Amino acid sequence: MNLAAHQADAIDTLSFEQRLAAAARRNNSLLCVGLDPVLNHMPAPLRHLADAVDAIVAFNAGIIEATCDLVSVYKPNLAFYLAHGEAGVRALAETRRLIPPEIPVLLDAKVGDVGSTAEAYATAYFDTWGFDAVTVNPYLGEDSLAPYLERADRGVIVVCKTSNPGSGDLQDLTVAAGEDEEPLFLKVAERAADWSQRWPATVGLVVGATYPRQLSDIRARCPDLPILLPGIGAQAGDLDAAVRAGLDTSQGGLMVSASRSIMYAGNSRGEAWTTGVRNAALELRDAINAVRATD
Amino acid sequence: MNLAAHQADAIDTLSFEQRLAAAARRNNSLLCVGLDPVLNHMPAPLRHLADAVDAIVAFNAGIIEATCDLVSVYKPNLAFYLAHGEAGVRALAETRRLIPPEIPVLLDAKVGDVGSTAEAYATAYFDTWGFDAVTVNPYLGEDSLAPYLERADRGVIVVCKTSNPGSGDLQDLTVAAGEDEEPLFLKVAERAADWSQRWPATVGLVVGATYPRQLSDIRARCPDLPILLPGIGAQAGDLDAAVRAGLDTSQGGLMVSASRSIMYAGNSRGEAWTTGVRNAALELRDAINAVRATD
Repeated sequence: MNLAAHQADAIDTLSFEQRLAAAARRNNSLLCVGLDPVLNHMPAPLRHLADAVDAIVAFNAGIIEATCDLVSVYKPNLAFYLAHGEAGVRALAETRRLIPPEIPVLLDAKVGDVGSTAEAYATAYFDTWGFDAVTVNPYLGEDSLAPYLERADRGVIVVCKTSNPGSGDLQDLTVAAGEDEEPLFLKVAERAADWSQRWPATVGLVVGATYPRQLSDIRARCPDLPILLPGIGAQAGDLDAAVRAGLDTSQGGLMVSASRSIMYAGNSRGEAWTTGVRNAALELRDAINAVRATD
Repeated sequence: MNLAAHQADAIDTLSFEQRLAAAARRNNSLLCVGLDPVLNHMPAPLRHLADAVDAIVAFNAGIIEATCDLVSVYKPNLAFYLAHGEAGVRALAETRRLIPPEIPVLLDAKVGDVGSTAEAYATAYFDTWGFDAVTVNPYLGEDSLAPYLERADRGVIVVCKTSNPGSGDLQDLTVAAGEDEEPLFLKVAERAADWSQRWPATVGLVVGATYPRQLSDIRARCPDLPILLPGIGAQAGDLDAAVRAGLDTSQGGLMVSASRSIMYAGNSRGEAWTTGVRNAALELRDAINAVRATD
């Protein structure tokens, strides 16, 4: 217990980027596993637990135990907990406590609000719940992100180019850039790179794996920023192109995010459901590493 | 009880815009009171309650009772509840139940995420908690807002030009618009106007009272959209300019939002704290109506 407490203390003094890199090294992995519990999709024995908190926590505990030597970061998404109201929030807090201290945890909340409201969110996500990093929406401007950016030991992952089909509605709009013009998402990437120079927190970006060309442009503009890469589907082809486009010069700098394809991989097999989860995580970790090795 | 249940049923079949207009008419008011509880700022007797849920609910109950004949909408901000974790979420759900059915309730969450995550947020905010409308962030595009926009009986209030000093960082960027160019926030306003034509929900906008000129441009572009107007400070001068710029042709279409200036108005008086709250709400409601009358 004393040793664990001591280790946790030492971990707390590092930046998010350092903790992420340490976990990536330890587990030889750029994999980020999402923790987005949906009762109807869970293995039957858990789904039938009377209490939603018990079901969610047992499900997440199984996933964490099956994958904690295979990932560099976990990513619970706030929506799937809020959908259960108070019970979901209790389950989220318990899930946070289940994760070993050497694995950082990124809360996917895509938060964006101003002034004292932003401060209240920072309190909730970093202090009340103890998450190591949070995804943020940049539309409200730099001052709206100050309560997160000022935290030297936390990560602020800025939504830049998202994986959905309609992401171009605003993100691809052409904006003036000096004499030139460029898409809005590149302007956001540039702002994030600037924030990373001027604020204590680790600043990163969210870029959908479904847009490898845009990812390439963003990586060229932001060589040093960690990138959260959602939108990896079942198709390994997409994975190759996206990982290749997103790796930094040290063959790292990516959090390759998968949620449903890992969490629910264990449902249709005869074996224990966690075996399917572990195999899916192992396969994806190794597929990512295969791209790194050949680069 | 039967009559109340019948009225509640009838209310449920109306659009958010219709319910908002009905409440505005009934109370002769465009006032939106924020419910953003901060324990340290509460009147001493409440602040010292042992349980955070009890304190928040008692505080909100006092505000609602003191103002429910003076407002057209209430606006709890999610951040101030999440800051208390599970207890805060319980207090938010109880607060929702305290509000009389004839007053619609807008959850200020500035939500924005994609696919099944957006669906989970819609479930949380509209179904689990029963809010009538939600503020949303447009940066992720139209498809990210579909789970809210498809609900005929709900409101979707799109962040357009926010009240903070740094709102221009992205919102004021110059974007190409055909042969011409315009600021990004006007493009967002135009998109929202288009969504309001094509989706069942009531679509509105968030525009900060601190930018009356931009508000004027937005109102010209979107003559029919309800506008949530935060950023009204202590200065009545700002109020005049902003309300004048934001009113629609029927002298309505505004939710003039005030939070701290009303919620904490009762702290420094000898009288019951709710008297101060009521007086502040009455004064602001009448100041808004004075602008409407002279237009």
